[in-house]
Amino acid sequence: MDVFKAISERRSVRKFKKMEIEDQLIYKILETGLWAPSAGNLQSWDVILINDQEIKQKLTTAAYMRDFISEAPVVMVLCANMHKSATIYNDRGRELFCIQDAACAGQNMLLAIHALGLGACWVGAFDEWLVAEAVVLPRHLRPVALIPFGYPDETPLPPPRRELDELIHWNKFGQEVCIER
Amino acid sequence: MDVFKAISERRSVRKFKKMEIEDQLIYKILETGLWAPSAGNLQSWDVILINDQEIKQKLTTAAYMRDFISEAPVVMVLCANMHKSATIYNDRGRELFCIQDAACAGQNMLLAIHALGLGACWVGAFDEWLVAEAVVLPRHLRPVALIPFGYPDETPLPPPRRELDELIHWNKFGQEVCIER
Repeated sequence: MDVFKAISERRSVRKFKKMEIEDQLIYKILETGLWAPSAGNLQSWDVILINDQEIKQKLTTAAYMRDFISEAPVVMVLCANMHKSATIYNDRGRELFCIQDAACAGQNMLLAIHALGLGACWVGAFDEWLVAEAVVLPRHLRPVALIPFGYPDETPLPPPRRELDELIHWNKFGQEVCIER
Repeated sequence: MDVFKAISERRSVRKFKKMEIEDQLIYKILETGLWAPSAGNLQSWDVILINDQEIKQKLTTAAYMRDFISEAPVVMVLCANMHKSATIYNDRGRELFCIQDAACAGQNMLLAIHALGLGACWVGAFDEWLVAEAVVLPRHLRPVALIPFGYPDETPLPPPRRELDELIHWNKFGQEVCIER
């Protein structure tokens, strides 16, 4: 699938068919995550893939009872590896770079999921501690997204986006600096 | 370009030809950013595009004298809109969601840049205050990446990536929970 088509036609899918996903597709999806850029090429992120119904149910609970999570055949728990990034970059690694590493990898994987005829939804609203408990995370892995995915059973319409004109600023944003050091 | 090809063949480019970039290409790149997912569809990020040589030089200084920044025809300053995300999501919006929104948009734009025959490099190591001063950012916009881009004048080899086997964990990561609430 063309990259511009994949980017513009990807939607958040919250309804899934009761169909398993072939392992080969899952590997292909994760591989696209590995090709994302990362600070110092450290690839400071990890994933846990959940297909166990009981654990999926715990993730639904952690995400304030969004039932579509446990209804997906597989749920990806995307984690920022704070320790790995902090080893080189200290606080900036722990609080910024590992979150960006995971997000860029996550975006690649969302595009791959769509291009393979699957659907997914990036879920950010959850209790991190409950997720960590459900999938047995060590202290240095911070869960930063839940990504349930599977064969889509809905075709969502494109949600509104901002106008390009509003987004583009040349050379400076405002008239004076307001940020304080 | 095929999306899997774009994802796996994109490289970090730090050497650019002295060629301008057509405005239409720049619009096409930014549009792909707008199609990235975002928390609550708030699209809590902004960009400032720099083609002024004096400001590009200030960005190079802010990024600890990485000269390739000022040598690119255009530098994108990617910002997380902390205020927008915090309005709905409070601290989680300010410290996580707006950073993820910007990163996902940034990754889409990196893929678009590559697919259009251009090259870019995501730069994360810089003094945020100096960048904010250079492009006149209001307090609520946090610069989270500098992305110089242009026609590539180098063909970098693929850097090593982690093995898929090391990345994949099914259902749980470890044996016991170490995270403390």
